[in-house]
Amino acid sequence: MRRDEIPTPALLLDLDRFERNLARMAAHVRAAGKALRPHAKTHRCPEIARRQVAAGALGVACAKLGEAEVMAGAGVRGLLVTTEVVAPGAIARLVRLAGEAPDTMVVVDHPDNVRALGAAAAGAGVTLNALVDVHVGARRTGVEPGEPALALGRLVAGQRGLRLRGLQGYAGHCAHVTGWDARRQASRAAMAPLMETRAAFEKAGLPVEIVAGGSTGTFDIDVELDGLTELQSGSYCVMDLEYQRIGGRGGEALTDFEMALTVVATVVSTPGPDRAMVDAGLKAFSTDRPFPPEPVERPGITYGFAGDEHGRLAITDPSRAPRLGERIEFFPPHCDPTINLYDRIHVVRGDRVEAIWEIAARGRSD
Amino acid sequence: MRRDEIPTPALLLDLDRFERNLARMAAHVRAAGKALRPHAKTHRCPEIARRQVAAGALGVACAKLGEAEVMAGAGVRGLLVTTEVVAPGAIARLVRLAGEAPDTMVVVDHPDNVRALGAAAAGAGVTLNALVDVHVGARRTGVEPGEPALALGRLVAGQRGLRLRGLQGYAGHCAHVTGWDARRQASRAAMAPLMETRAAFEKAGLPVEIVAGGSTGTFDIDVELDGLTELQSGSYCVMDLEYQRIGGRGGEALTDFEMALTVVATVVSTPGPDRAMVDAGLKAFSTDRPFPPEPVERPGITYGFAGDEHGRLAITDPSRAPRLGERIEFFPPHCDPTINLYDRIHVVRGDRVEAIWEIAARGRSD
Repeated sequence: MRRDEIPTPALLLDLDRFERNLARMAAHVRAAGKALRPHAKTHRCPEIARRQVAAGALGVACAKLGEAEVMAGAGVRGLLVTTEVVAPGAIARLVRLAGEAPDTMVVVDHPDNVRALGAAAAGAGVTLNALVDVHVGARRTGVEPGEPALALGRLVAGQRGLRLRGLQGYAGHCAHVTGWDARRQASRAAMAPLMETRAAFEKAGLPVEIVAGGSTGTFDIDVELDGLTELQSGSYCVMDLEYQRIGGRGGEALTDFEMALTVVATVVSTPGPDRAMVDAGLKAFSTDRPFPPEPVERPGITYGFAGDEHGRLAITDPSRAPRLGERIEFFPPHCDPTINLYDRIHVVRGDRVEAIWEIAARGRSD
Repeated sequence: MRRDEIPTPALLLDLDRFERNLARMAAHVRAAGKALRPHAKTHRCPEIARRQVAAGALGVACAKLGEAEVMAGAGVRGLLVTTEVVAPGAIARLVRLAGEAPDTMVVVDHPDNVRALGAAAAGAGVTLNALVDVHVGARRTGVEPGEPALALGRLVAGQRGLRLRGLQGYAGHCAHVTGWDARRQASRAAMAPLMETRAAFEKAGLPVEIVAGGSTGTFDIDVELDGLTELQSGSYCVMDLEYQRIGGRGGEALTDFEMALTVVATVVSTPGPDRAMVDAGLKAFSTDRPFPPEPVERPGITYGFAGDEHGRLAITDPSRAPRLGERIEFFPPHCDPTINLYDRIHVVRGDRVEAIWEIAARGRSD
C-alpha cells in the first residue's frame, strides 16, 4: 500500500523518525548511567514495546493492568503497572499475570491494598514485586514521602507474598512546564522528597534497587538525580505538539525527539471560500489540550474541531485553498489519547506503508 | 456477572431506560407522521441499531462509510451515509456496499463528487441512492440552498448510476441551543431554506420523497416542518449531560429521554482528605465538552480529569469521603465520543449484567 492509499482518517508513524527517537533515548540513558522502562500507555502497541526493549529498555511501564496483560501476552517482560490495583477481580488478574510473567511489578500506596495484594499473592503461591508509590506533588496517587512511605515500605517488606523492590514517584505536574530551566527547577523540587525517602529506605535497610520516575519533559533533568535508577518517559518515541511546545535545553521547541506521529485526513467538502471540511474530528484526535491539531507542511489553513467526524479548515491563504479530495496530515496535540482512538497504526517510510501495527491494548484501561 | 463485578472503567447501559427511550421516540415520530432513521454514529453498535429498527426505524444514519460497512455486515439495512464520500478508494467501497445493501444512500454536495460517484456506480452496474446535502448554517458540509442545490440535484438526476431521492439538511448548530423556545426559533430559521429548496425541487420535478434532518435537541421541533420526512436524532437512545442540560419543552432539563449511559470507575487511591482518585480519566470519558462527568446519585464529590487514566474526586463533604475500592458511576458529558472509546457496552438491568454488546463500528471513522 502507498501512503496516499490509506483510508482516512488514519494514524501514521514515520518509521525513520521513530527509529531515531528510540536510538536517541537509548544513547541518552546509557550515557547517564540510567535504565529505561518507557511508558507503554503512550502507544499501547506491543510491536513498539518490543522495539523499545530491543533498543535496550528493561521492559515497559503500563498505566493499567489491562495494558500489562496485553503486553505480557505479546511476550513483553519487565512490566511495571504504575497505577494501584485495588478491585478484588483486578487483584486476582494481577496475581495470575505475575504467575505468567514473574518479573511484573505493581505500585502500592495504601496499607489495606498492601495486605490484600500480599494475601492474594501468598494464597496463589506467587511473589508479587512491588514499589511504593510516593506522592511528589502531582496530586494524584501516592503515599506521602518520608515517614508514611517508610511505614508502608515496612508493611510491604513484611508480606510473605510481596517483594519490595523500591520506589516510584511520578511528577506529572512538572512534565509540561514550559521552558527547560523552569521545568528543571520544578522537577528538582518535586523529586527531592522522593530522594529523601530513598535515603530513609536505605538507612532502614529497605530495598531501593529500583527508583523510577520521569517523563519525556524531564528526560534530561531527572537523570541528574543520583538515586533515580530508571526513567519512565513515554511520549518521546512518537512526540506530540504539547511536548514539542514545552521547549528544550536548546530553545523554544523540544527538538531532542522528532514528531513521528500524524493523522491523515481527506478534504471531503469545499463548501465556500471561508472553509474546507476534512473527515477527521473529535473521534480522530483527542481534545484534551487547549490547542488544535496542526497541519504538517501545509500552509494556508488552520484546523478547528467541528464535530465527531468533521474538522473545519479555515482558509487563511485563498491561493492555497484545499481542493476536494486533497489529503492533509496533522500533528496531534496529545499522543497518548489520540493513539487510543485507533486500532492500528500505519507505519510509513516516505511514500511506502512498511507495516501495520496493532494497537492491541487500545481501550484496555481496565 | 453482577454489575459490581464488571472490570473498571467500563461503559454501562441501563436497559430499562434505553428501552423506554426507544419506545418514546417511536411513539413520538408515529404520532407526528414522520419516519425515523436514527444516527448510529452515537452508538456504533449493531445490536442497538437492530433494536431501533425493531422499534420502527427505517434503518440507521451513519456518519462514515466505515460505520455503514459494519452495520451492513451485521444485517442492518436502510443505511444513509451522512458525510460525503470522496476518496477514490472510499468510492469503490461505497459502490461495493451498495451492491450488497442496495437501499444504502449517500449525501453529495459537489459536482465533481457527483460525477465520480455516478461513473463508479455505472461502471459497477449498481444504482447508488443519493440525497443532496444542503447547508443550513452549521458551517460544515452542504451545498448552498436554493439555486446551487437545485443545480446539483439536476446533475444527480442526470447520472445513470445515481438515483436522486431527496435532501438532507443537518442544523448541528441548533442541536444544543439552551432553552426550548430559543432552540425552536433557531431551528425553524435554519431549516426554512431547506424547506424552500424542497419546494423548488418539487416544482422542478425532482424527487423529494426523503427530506432528512433533525437532532435529539430538535426532535419535537423539526417534526413541525411539513416537508421533513424523517428525523436523524441519535443521542436520544442513551442521552448525555450535554443534551440533558439544553432543557426541554417542559423545563430546565430535557427529560423526554432518560440518562441510560454511565461509566463505572473504582476508587484506586485515597491519598488525603482533599481528594480520592478513580481509575477513569481522559481515555474513559471524552473531553470535548466544557463540563466534567457527573457522579450518579453519589453526593459529596465532584469529578475532575487528572490524566489519561486518572480522575480526581474533590471531596466536598468529608463525611462522604470515598473509600478505597468503592465503585462510582458517572454520566458522561457527551455520549458519541465516549462510547467510541470502548469496545463493548455492559447492558445492565438493576444489579444484573444481561448482555455485553460489541461496539463493532468503534473507531470506524474511515
